[in-house]
Amino acid sequence: MVSPATVERVLAAAQRLGYTANAVARGLRRQRSQTVGVLIPDLTNPMFAPIVRGIEDALSPMGFTAFVANTDNSEIKERRAFEAFRARQVDGFIFANARRDLGVIQDAFDIGIPSVLANRTTDIALFPWVAGDDDSGMRQIIEHLVELGHRKIAYIAGPQNISAGHVRTIAFRRYVEENDLSVVDCPVAQGDAFDSPSGGVGVKHILQHYPTVTAIVCGNDMIAVGALAALRDAGIACPTEMSIVGFNDMALARDLLPSLTTVRAPMHQFGQKAAEMLLSELANNEVEKGVLLPTHLVERGSSSAARQHDLLQS
Amino acid sequence: MVSPATVERVLAAAQRLGYTANAVARGLRRQRSQTVGVLIPDLTNPMFAPIVRGIEDALSPMGFTAFVANTDNSEIKERRAFEAFRARQVDGFIFANARRDLGVIQDAFDIGIPSVLANRTTDIALFPWVAGDDDSGMRQIIEHLVELGHRKIAYIAGPQNISAGHVRTIAFRRYVEENDLSVVDCPVAQGDAFDSPSGGVGVKHILQHYPTVTAIVCGNDMIAVGALAALRDAGIACPTEMSIVGFNDMALARDLLPSLTTVRAPMHQFGQKAAEMLLSELANNEVEKGVLLPTHLVERGSSSAARQHDLLQS
Repeated sequence: MVSPATVERVLAAAQRLGYTANAVARGLRRQRSQTVGVLIPDLTNPMFAPIVRGIEDALSPMGFTAFVANTDNSEIKERRAFEAFRARQVDGFIFANARRDLGVIQDAFDIGIPSVLANRTTDIALFPWVAGDDDSGMRQIIEHLVELGHRKIAYIAGPQNISAGHVRTIAFRRYVEENDLSVVDCPVAQGDAFDSPSGGVGVKHILQHYPTVTAIVCGNDMIAVGALAALRDAGIACPTEMSIVGFNDMALARDLLPSLTTVRAPMHQFGQKAAEMLLSELANNEVEKGVLLPTHLVERGSSSAARQHDLLQS
Repeated sequence: MVSPATVERVLAAAQRLGYTANAVARGLRRQRSQTVGVLIPDLTNPMFAPIVRGIEDALSPMGFTAFVANTDNSEIKERRAFEAFRARQVDGFIFANARRDLGVIQDAFDIGIPSVLANRTTDIALFPWVAGDDDSGMRQIIEHLVELGHRKIAYIAGPQNISAGHVRTIAFRRYVEENDLSVVDCPVAQGDAFDSPSGGVGVKHILQHYPTVTAIVCGNDMIAVGALAALRDAGIACPTEMSIVGFNDMALARDLLPSLTTVRAPMHQFGQKAAEMLLSELANNEVEKGVLLPTHLVERGSSSAARQHDLLQS
């Protein structure tokens, strides 16, 4: 027990020493800073801006501020950002970082900091999560291509140590099998990153080793951007000679050459829902363990019937 | 003067009251939090991700963390983010927010918080700034189009209450005059925002009221994205019937349909240099008053000779 007089004396002394009754001090006292740390893997991937926007749209009316930091999918940067946020006493975390190993998520769990995962899950469920139904998205892609007559479909996968990279590759293999396609004719080219250079490397690999492929599914839209450019460089017309499908429906996917067939993930909702769940957690309300949001195929110019290519082959 | 014994007593009492010797407390004591508040106007504009990345690349090796917040070009959100950052005692600000009125920049100046402006200037010079040479960029655009034979060039301007919108419109008018073009034949359509819908509205306005225009300069690349889509909808071929030029060379500008002729602004450098200047300021070193970085025209598929269109007109 501390007497009111002591409190007053301490506060007066604290003030003399430079402690001020500002928001940080108040936050320390009541252990609430009204700030949330947001870890995202790559701000230059257009997919994350709407997620951040969704987070802000949910936090802002409640007087909370989102502090955003990039992790570059690097464990070191992830840890540094996590520690910087902890030192500033954020009330909670939204992890949209993407590495499959738990890393700082395990730390947040051990310390007991309220957190939510956005656009990812973990193999062991430590925190509530919001993610898109990637499995259904991939099913829609494969069914779309099969309906168009494609039987030889390649996949340029995102990194397997990244949550979305892992989940989507498993789904690709599943729906190749479920649609009775030949596993040998539907190869997976492993990309280094979810970026356009990986799409370029992937296309070159596929053209060289699997020349009869008529459609390429890309692990995300940035990989598709690189794939489209590599096809142009190789003088192969998309979609008449090769169909390309992306994943996410990022901003500008419709404005590419040709406009990109892709799966729309509700990115703004990922952010908004994750922030709402975190606010519920902070208010000690019950929170869903996980929320899987629907994904939808968006058919555009980069996919078409395999027919013309088959004619060329025969 | 406070005796060492008092310090110890106060710290012990502070600890009992829940004050901990964590980084926030240490920051309060030595008035240094190793954090920087970054205000940006719109994270969904691909132009700002490389600026943030540049800021992080300069801050991170020095142990500083960037906290990023969106302002949406809204005075209310700008002020809310500014106050949230102040309450968390950031050491300084990087203002990449874009409103021409001083707003929170004046506040930062009055309070005396070290700050740097990135990708903008202010009419009254309160803080050091880093910006691209928009005037030179616009000169290069107009000279490029004049060389291609264009004499009737329209401009879809960004908002005039935004720094870049204002500067680029002035430059457009200047180089129309300096190249002896008719001011009447080179109209300015005023966009509501630096986004693609403004490009769509601008193109419709120009096609209706200035049907003999052969080239449209856009206030930024996002406006150009909307302009390209509106031309497609109107059945007008770019570049053979209408040239389009953007501004910034954002990610994916080269991947649009057609690939976008634009002016490259060194966005990563904006951020990096601004952060370096802020770190210098915090170390009480002398800092440049302003740094103007060069801009370069990047010629791509969306601009070509005016000839074919002129033939159609005659």
